[in-house]
Amino acid sequence: MYETIRTELKSGIMTIILNLPDTLNVYTDQMSEELIHAYQNANNNDDVRVIIVTGEGRAFCAGMDLSEGEATFTSSKDEDEYRDSGGQLSLQVYELQKPIIAAINGPAVGIGLTMTLPMDIRIVKKDAKIGFVFSKLGIGPEAASGWFLPRIVGIGKALEWMYTGRYIPTSEAVKHGLVHYEEEEPLKKAYEIAKDIAENTAATSNRLVRQLLWKMTSEDHPYQSHLIESKFLYWAGNNTDAKEGIQSFLEKRPAKFPLKISDVPDFFKGEEKR
Amino acid sequence: MYETIRTELKSGIMTIILNLPDTLNVYTDQMSEELIHAYQNANNNDDVRVIIVTGEGRAFCAGMDLSEGEATFTSSKDEDEYRDSGGQLSLQVYELQKPIIAAINGPAVGIGLTMTLPMDIRIVKKDAKIGFVFSKLGIGPEAASGWFLPRIVGIGKALEWMYTGRYIPTSEAVKHGLVHYEEEEPLKKAYEIAKDIAENTAATSNRLVRQLLWKMTSEDHPYQSHLIESKFLYWAGNNTDAKEGIQSFLEKRPAKFPLKISDVPDFFKGEEKR
Amino acid sequence: MYETIRTELKSGIMTIILNLPDTLNVYTDQMSEELIHAYQNANNNDDVRVIIVTGEGRAFCAGMDLSEGEATFTSSKDEDEYRDSGGQLSLQVYELQKPIIAAINGPAVGIGLTMTLPMDIRIVKKDAKIGFVFSKLGIGPEAASGWFLPRIVGIGKALEWMYTGRYIPTSEAVKHGLVHYEEEEPLKKAYEIAKDIAENTAATSNRLVRQLLWKMTSEDHPYQSHLIESKFLYWAGNNTDAKEGIQSFLEKRPAKFPLKISDVPDFFKGEEKR
Repeated sequence: MYETIRTELKSGIMTIILNLPDTLNVYTDQMSEELIHAYQNANNNDDVRVIIVTGEGRAFCAGMDLSEGEATFTSSKDEDEYRDSGGQLSLQVYELQKPIIAAINGPAVGIGLTMTLPMDIRIVKKDAKIGFVFSKLGIGPEAASGWFLPRIVGIGKALEWMYTGRYIPTSEAVKHGLVHYEEEEPLKKAYEIAKDIAENTAATSNRLVRQLLWKMTSEDHPYQSHLIESKFLYWAGNNTDAKEGIQSFLEKRPAKFPLKISDVPDFFKGEEKR
Repeated sequence: MYETIRTELKSGIMTIILNLPDTLNVYTDQMSEELIHAYQNANNNDDVRVIIVTGEGRAFCAGMDLSEGEATFTSSKDEDEYRDSGGQLSLQVYELQKPIIAAINGPAVGIGLTMTLPMDIRIVKKDAKIGFVFSKLGIGPEAASGWFLPRIVGIGKALEWMYTGRYIPTSEAVKHGLVHYEEEEPLKKAYEIAKDIAENTAATSNRLVRQLLWKMTSEDHPYQSHLIESKFLYWAGNNTDAKEGIQSFLEKRPAKFPLKISDVPDFFKGEEKR
Repeated sequence: MYETIRTELKSGIMTIILNLPDTLNVYTDQMSEELIHAYQNANNNDDVRVIIVTGEGRAFCAGMDLSEGEATFTSSKDEDEYRDSGGQLSLQVYELQKPIIAAINGPAVGIGLTMTLPMDIRIVKKDAKIGFVFSKLGIGPEAASGWFLPRIVGIGKALEWMYTGRYIPTSEAVKHGLVHYEEEEPLKKAYEIAKDIAENTAATSNRLVRQLLWKMTSEDHPYQSHLIESKFLYWAGNNTDAKEGIQSFLEKRPAKFPLKISDVPDFFKGEEKR
């Protein structure tokens, strides 16, 4: 069904693999559409607890497909209709209700790197080539990276990296929080974390965590968080995940949480924007 | 007067001690109410320049009291009335007008850790057990931590720690800014900083610093900060703390600031939310 | 024409030098006015690609001129008219459309340090004396630093440094992102970065980067970034910088971007605040 990606579901972990290894998984509009479709499916499937995104072959994603040369960024749409497809992708990731991990297994350049910013945990192959190369191409940042990057690394490094467009040593990327870990085998580390989340935590809790923390980066008062947290705690206190969590804790045994992500009421109504 | 905490005031430093050492200072609704009372008193007492919070015995706070088992999070209130007591506590800390330091002298788990997030400086006992364990209990983050944590450590680590609920090595906590220092004797370090603030700085200045910096994390334009800073500078320029500060600087002697916190006009009117 | 500063323009790099070395480049209202004038000129001159600010002699800026003693902060204006001149300076820097780098060549204290916060990249002389000394003088933070500092270093360190007013070791400043680099020759490092930006990147791209990233630190949804990024990409896709960027990339040669900063339409209309 997909031509540019493929997916695998095993033990609650959905792996989405960028699958154009002959072109270093170069980004195309078709890939964007297929990723959006795959993200929506993963989100709506209660069997999926954690999403991992990685690349087939030696690259994660070498950036925008520039094979059309000058025509790459020209559009048949008019100015008011035109929307960056990378941004559409990021807005979809922003709406997910479960953890998503980027296993950056090789070079990740331009959109190849910005597409991982709305994800939650980034693990990079040690010494892989990564960079925000826009200023060297005469274009601008995309994938809503103007919003995501300063929240992840602070405004200082965000500006320096975007201005110069230089490759960022992976050790520098770790130091400033752009990626959480640099590893020889990023996918292996991603599975370790995903497995820990899928086996030992409540899907209901982590649905709240994902939506709450991202949204609260922009709320103007802790009171906003307090209101949502109170509603969730009230709901949780009357449901079986919390009862099992407390029982298992008191009995010093692993918990088996019964609830599914779709059992959680929507505490963030009407906020989706495209 | 208090049953779960006790307080000590000496040399301008109010120490608030969680005082249920037999249960590792486990958090209860009564402790929340007594802390809110103690914070309000400390705030309104001009003799208090700095607040330190620590725990009696070997723990800081082992988290929520789960001794009632399944009933822990059920409430007799209805859904619209119910409010997380940890959030009420955090909102009180948010309104303080003087520096508050957490001396995390031992394990700090769940609410034991989130209650320190609205405080200003966190010092942790080296290798103490600390963690945001909510997802392992089937509940959600509380104490308005959804708002505070991303501001302190960035969204990346905030999500990873909350998703997994794992214990965070104190060295990792320092590296990512969750705590300022790891020490063998956190309370000793807390007193060093508190003493420096109480003896060498103006209470009036630090009242502004506390309110301004927290609030400006959420304002949309530096102009908002400029307006408040201008009002404060105008007021300070006509008052005795600045005159003493400049004179002592020119005479190369320690300053003795005459003003009290309550001498400062309220530059942030009408913003308190509960 | 200027009495407190001087400027040099060479190879697209405008260097602005605080030029009162006999008084360690102490800050005065005249310096503020001359800097604002110089920033506006640099911004409106398409030949200027990058701005560097540094100090003549052994200091960067020793802070406010306190030689008038107690009268330093008293104003002939009334309360509602009074505006901190440091804040006026910061608001001007905030509006710039090109990268600005602080080469902090020696001591930078009070306004000497806060004036660099709205700049994009800070490079400090190793072991120079730097600090936010306001609480030791009985005054408050200025230059809109209440808004800038938490965005740069996080709320935790911002509060500690402002409360104590202590000098910050430059290694600690690097570790927490207050400065990007500590160097024996900060101006040399500043020129390396400025030269890289001026020679290898598009002025049009970096105009967007500067405005977008700063503003998006305060927007409540990534959608806001997506809208601006889409407009810029549409515009860029129909203009020559992107065409040259892609061609040079495909031909593996350095790009020569033809466009000037003033060629970019204003995607952030009507937002300037003073």
